[in-house]
Amino acid sequence: MLKPLGDRIVLEQIETEETTASGIVLPDSAKEKPQEGKIVAVGAGRVTDNGERVALELKEGDSVIFSKYAGTEVKYEGKDYLILRESDILAVIG
Amino acid sequence: MLKPLGDRIVLEQIETEETTASGIVLPDSAKEKPQEGKIVAVGAGRVTDNGERVALELKEGDSVIFSKYAGTEVKYEGKDYLILRESDILAVIG
Amino acid sequence: MLKPLGDRIVLEQIETEETTASGIVLPDSAKEKPQEGKIVAVGAGRVTDNGERVALELKEGDSVIFSKYAGTEVKYEGKDYLILRESDILAVIG
Amino acid sequence: MLKPLGDRIVLEQIETEETTASGIVLPDSAKEKPQEGKIVAVGAGRVTDNGERVALELKEGDSVIFSKYAGTEVKYEGKDYLILRESDILAVIG
Amino acid sequence: MLKPLGDRIVLEQIETEETTASGIVLPDSAKEKPQEGKIVAVGAGRVTDNGERVALELKEGDSVIFSKYAGTEVKYEGKDYLILRESDILAVIG
Amino acid sequence: MLKPLGDRIVLEQIETEETTASGIVLPDSAKEKPQEGKIVAVGAGRVTDNGERVALELKEGDSVIFSKYAGTEVKYEGKDYLILRESDILAVIG
Amino acid sequence: MLKPLGDRIVLEQIETEETTASGIVLPDSAKEKPQEGKIVAVGAGRVTDNGERVALELKEGDSVIFSKYAGTEVKYEGKDYLILRESDILAVIG
Repeated sequence: MLKPLGDRIVLEQIETEETTASGIVLPDSAKEKPQEGKIVAVGAGRVTDNGERVALELKEGDSVIFSKYAGTEVKYEGKDYLILRESDILAVIG
Repeated sequence: MLKPLGDRIVLEQIETEETTASGIVLPDSAKEKPQEGKIVAVGAGRVTDNGERVALELKEGDSVIFSKYAGTEVKYEGKDYLILRESDILAVIG
Repeated sequence: MLKPLGDRIVLEQIETEETTASGIVLPDSAKEKPQEGKIVAVGAGRVTDNGERVALELKEGDSVIFSKYAGTEVKYEGKDYLILRESDILAVIG
Repeated sequence: MLKPLGDRIVLEQIETEETTASGIVLPDSAKEKPQEGKIVAVGAGRVTDNGERVALELKEGDSVIFSKYAGTEVKYEGKDYLILRESDILAVIG
Repeated sequence: MLKPLGDRIVLEQIETEETTASGIVLPDSAKEKPQEGKIVAVGAGRVTDNGERVALELKEGDSVIFSKYAGTEVKYEGKDYLILRESDILAVIG
Repeated sequence: MLKPLGDRIVLEQIETEETTASGIVLPDSAKEKPQEGKIVAVGAGRVTDNGERVALELKEGDSVIFSKYAGTEVKYEGKDYLILRESDILAVIG
Repeated sequence: MLKPLGDRIVLEQIETEETTASGIVLPDSAKEKPQEGKIVAVGAGRVTDNGERVALELKEGDSVIFSKYAGTEVKYEGKDYLILRESDILAVIG
């Protein structure tokens, strides 16, 4: 299992196939919108200057929209994950 | 539903058709003023260094003026939204 | 009405016609000094890291001098306004 | 009257004519040392993250040395002033 | 022994041999994913603005994934170590 | 007298003539080490975000080593001084 | 004696002669690893925004590994020292 540190989360990207009006599937480089993912693990939260830990708003299982290009890709036990900071998550879907 | 995180908000842009004195409708690239939008969802607020969460000043339904170029465009269930931080909102109209 | 957020203010610029010794009216690009304006609305103030809101020093009706180039121009109900942060205001006249 | 905001001050520059050993008066561009000024008004002070206002060390009437290039020149009722932050003042003379 | 300061940690990199489908071992320059390591020592933690020391989340023996390029390589008693800040660690494996 | 503000100090540079092995006096541009000075005045200290003033560690009369290039040169009553922040002082000699 | 200010320390660099397998002594420019040093003096510590002084973790006599290129070289009474901030020290050896 991957346990992220601080205000980081681990998520799986959700591939969203994209088809144009004429039925052409767009290659990755032609898509410019943020991506969707599912949270698989969350960190314990960042520590403020008062020494208090702030729990994350997100929890395991949340579907989220995140900034493309954010985070670091990690391959773990044959699967691809993305590790980001909670601040790179734009919104929860649900 | 899209639930924004922290001090973020989700809004729908309001298209404001613009016509010159001679009746010509200006294309988008010729307009340089900030944009108008309607808030559809607000986050729970940012957490200060004291560990307190600061509720947003904005609420669902507010009409706002925001900085052009701010935020990230998101398409969700066929509709276009913009996700911004409250600090990108200049003023509430009303 | 435009209600600015946080430590922002809305002001109307005061046009100050400028004439040279020989009576020539200077075009805008030849003037390089800060501008004058009248406050029409002020925000509720910024929130400190202690979670307290700090009221603005400025109030509606104040005549102020502000940094040229600061702020964002907004057209609202046919009139031009400028939205700035209080920190862009140099001094109150009066 | 000009009332500066926050930790800003208003001062009048003191022109210090400079003469070389051979009696030549140096033009402005040849002088590279900090400038002298007299404080004509001080702001109420900045507000810390604890919500407390910190009064300025400077007061009206102080003669000061300040960083050349700092601040904004303002013409008010026919006289030239300079508006700076207290942090741009290097020292008080006296 | 190497005792890291503040929020720093010392780790040993774990070499992960990589083989392509056709059995070719990839040279280092062709791998672009984050690296794995084992923590051998942790610092006492950073001191917040309240003067409190925040203990690290990591402990000796943890296997971690860290940002490639982060940290400083140190050779000590013939062995290679990497010294990083805890914030350069993405996740704990376990 | 020059009274520096906040965490600033006023010092006199101590000229340290430098002679090479062969007796050649090095010109200024050939020296690259930090400079020595004697403190002639210290400010009241900076104010923290808690509104408390932190007295300087340095006091009048201290001989110090400071970062070359730091600070601003000031000529006052025919003598040259340097005004720096305490953080530009590397160490006290004594 | 050199008494460093705030969170600064004074150290003596330890020259570590380096010899290649074939017995060639490497010139300085060919070494790219962090350097070793011995602490000869430590400052009183930095002051937090709460006005509290945070004592250094390091003490006189500690052998440390530090970031190459960090700090300022100082020659004092014929000996060479390096003045750095504690944050430039990577680890204590011992």
